[in-house]
Amino acid sequence: MPTKPPRAEVIAVGSELLGESRAETNSLLIARYLAQVGIEIRRKSVVGDDAESLVLAVQQSLDRSSLLIITGGLGPTADDITREVVAALLGLELQVDPVSLERLKVIYGRLMLDIKPNSLRQVTLPEGADVLHNDHGTAPGLLLTVGDAVIFLLPGPPRELQPMFENQVMARIRRRFGVRALSERNIRLASLAESAVDARVLPILAEYPDIQYTILSSPGLIELIFRSQSEPNKAAQDLDSLQARICAEMGDRVYSTLSRDLPSVVGELLAKKGLMLATAESCTAGSISRWLTDVSGSSSFFAGGVIAYSDRVKQDLLGVSLEILQSHGAVSSESAVAMAAGVCRMTGAEIGISVTGVAGPTGGTQEKPVGTVWFGVSVQGRTASVGRRFPGDRASVRLRSTRFALDWLRHQIVQ
Amino acid sequence: MPTKPPRAEVIAVGSELLGESRAETNSLLIARYLAQVGIEIRRKSVVGDDAESLVLAVQQSLDRSSLLIITGGLGPTADDITREVVAALLGLELQVDPVSLERLKVIYGRLMLDIKPNSLRQVTLPEGADVLHNDHGTAPGLLLTVGDAVIFLLPGPPRELQPMFENQVMARIRRRFGVRALSERNIRLASLAESAVDARVLPILAEYPDIQYTILSSPGLIELIFRSQSEPNKAAQDLDSLQARICAEMGDRVYSTLSRDLPSVVGELLAKKGLMLATAESCTAGSISRWLTDVSGSSSFFAGGVIAYSDRVKQDLLGVSLEILQSHGAVSSESAVAMAAGVCRMTGAEIGISVTGVAGPTGGTQEKPVGTVWFGVSVQGRTASVGRRFPGDRASVRLRSTRFALDWLRHQIVQ
Repeated sequence: MPTKPPRAEVIAVGSELLGESRAETNSLLIARYLAQVGIEIRRKSVVGDDAESLVLAVQQSLDRSSLLIITGGLGPTADDITREVVAALLGLELQVDPVSLERLKVIYGRLMLDIKPNSLRQVTLPEGADVLHNDHGTAPGLLLTVGDAVIFLLPGPPRELQPMFENQVMARIRRRFGVRALSERNIRLASLAESAVDARVLPILAEYPDIQYTILSSPGLIELIFRSQSEPNKAAQDLDSLQARICAEMGDRVYSTLSRDLPSVVGELLAKKGLMLATAESCTAGSISRWLTDVSGSSSFFAGGVIAYSDRVKQDLLGVSLEILQSHGAVSSESAVAMAAGVCRMTGAEIGISVTGVAGPTGGTQEKPVGTVWFGVSVQGRTASVGRRFPGDRASVRLRSTRFALDWLRHQIVQ
Repeated sequence: MPTKPPRAEVIAVGSELLGESRAETNSLLIARYLAQVGIEIRRKSVVGDDAESLVLAVQQSLDRSSLLIITGGLGPTADDITREVVAALLGLELQVDPVSLERLKVIYGRLMLDIKPNSLRQVTLPEGADVLHNDHGTAPGLLLTVGDAVIFLLPGPPRELQPMFENQVMARIRRRFGVRALSERNIRLASLAESAVDARVLPILAEYPDIQYTILSSPGLIELIFRSQSEPNKAAQDLDSLQARICAEMGDRVYSTLSRDLPSVVGELLAKKGLMLATAESCTAGSISRWLTDVSGSSSFFAGGVIAYSDRVKQDLLGVSLEILQSHGAVSSESAVAMAAGVCRMTGAEIGISVTGVAGPTGGTQEKPVGTVWFGVSVQGRTASVGRRFPGDRASVRLRSTRFALDWLRHQIVQ
């Protein structure tokens, strides 16, 4: 039987999070995990490394919430005060935890460090705490119960926090609050605006009242997440049905239903067909190649390419004819096709993709304003081109061009 | 006479900031501006679009702070509640502000939109509010005085917030709290770790007790910011003296004292010397080219390059000999030099920079483990190479390689 999910708050501790350079991002990771069991974060606070602020924040949170997650301030240095401050507030004695001490000795031994009094603070824990061992650092996490509420004290570094949350915190939250993992489906799309996706998803979604919907938009990627609170069988049925309908509605704009990123999907398609790709980039100047080679093992499908920024490089390294450059210009369908074909010829790759455009802020003309971009492709001798006009500044035009090129390339390979 | 700076808090309003995708970053911009007048943010809160949470957050902030900055929730949609909630909390009547209404009419007229009742909410303002006109959006900002404290209500979109803060908020904060702009100096360095910079800066800084120091570290960049609270003449003297000593200590690791980024500095050096650059990238696969062409006007110093991911491309497009590849391998000083010289020959550029390395996670050997990277340069026929072993995963090795290549290139041009 589903229980009402608890009211959750996050308090991040650390003076560096109040300055001009470091955004608080642990709460995003926490929000993602909590969403999987239907819990929403209702408030977030950031306080510095001072006891008075932290005490007040914890007291006020406990007044209104039953799940409090505090990150940071568990380390060995003098400004790490979270453990002591929270223990004092709750009237708990601190004592060295023998198991945690043994683990600390092993870690310090490996690093050939002495355990100083300050290091010992990390394993001097409030009585009655449920200890969450830290497999990626020295400070254990803690779970404290205060009446109807629970407080998690968790390490600040994301590489320590993430596995602890996944492997230890989630099980405790499920148990404590009787919440269960929700079924989830995921759809990723390219080359569409968030608002356009929303407009096509919402009418379909309206027929699934039990399904929650989140849309995440990041450069090169729109991700739809659907979650259901229904009992597992019904949830799976509903989600499968919704996912199928949305995939049908969005057609070939969907590039993954398995949380894969676009360059990986393109790389996998290329590898599956045994085709090597080469790039001929002008205005994107290496972005497409960089994205594709973010994929580990990319040498199995990516040969290399030419960054043809100047007309001379377009001629000398890609064999674009002077006639094309003079009669159609470097930013043209003809140039794009010649670049794609040329890079195949020069590298021996089976597929070539090219981009040539006006990224701005200078270089635009009446006929070819800033944002005009031509894409060319050569697939085993067959060539094609497409033109687009992208909005925004230089960075925006380059990013949209990179994104579009990868998605258009995907379509060319699938064909 | 300097006044004690006020205790400042930021409240960000918006349910989207409590989810899994959007970090709260407006406060970083605000922190940077406030630091310029010696004010620190003491606490940050994020609340959703619900009145109860917002009322509680504002009340509790007013209990302890005299400068409260609230961002977001001023727009025309139903979930934009900040203006009404704060007015109700303070017992202020709302009325249409004629000047703001006129401005809204002009904006809507330009967009050929009707002013609906919801749009009108944006210009229905609390009595007695100091109105901050919005030159980049429709919702004006507001300044309200509550006893000894002030509350700023500011728009959430950064492109509206930033100019409003710089042009209107800062003057009001200086006037209200009697704080003045601090003098500031800036030093940027490359190819050093934050801790190493800290260790060399702190002993010098100790002789300047009136100067505050912030170190910002981001990919490819360490930035030192020094600020002084002293009276302007003494501040300028102290800061100039400190800056000169730190520049002397750090030597040619300093690439800018004018807040310029590394690719811009490299591009400016190239343009000044009238030299065209070409790149030959293997493991970085376009990153160096991408960074350099982020600089607007880069076609005046950047010709293009070759992404030589496969050995075949290294041979065919860069003329690296089979003998070098067979006897020294693709990741070697010899290959790096041949790639740099080759890309100059192929493109006609005066300067060539090359990178070849093992980014991982596969491809490492006993002799050349993951992280081994060779760099080559050819400057008007003179060649050089340097090898490095970088720590971290694939992304880290590629990023550090890109950063190092740009900084090493800078040294080669300066010589």
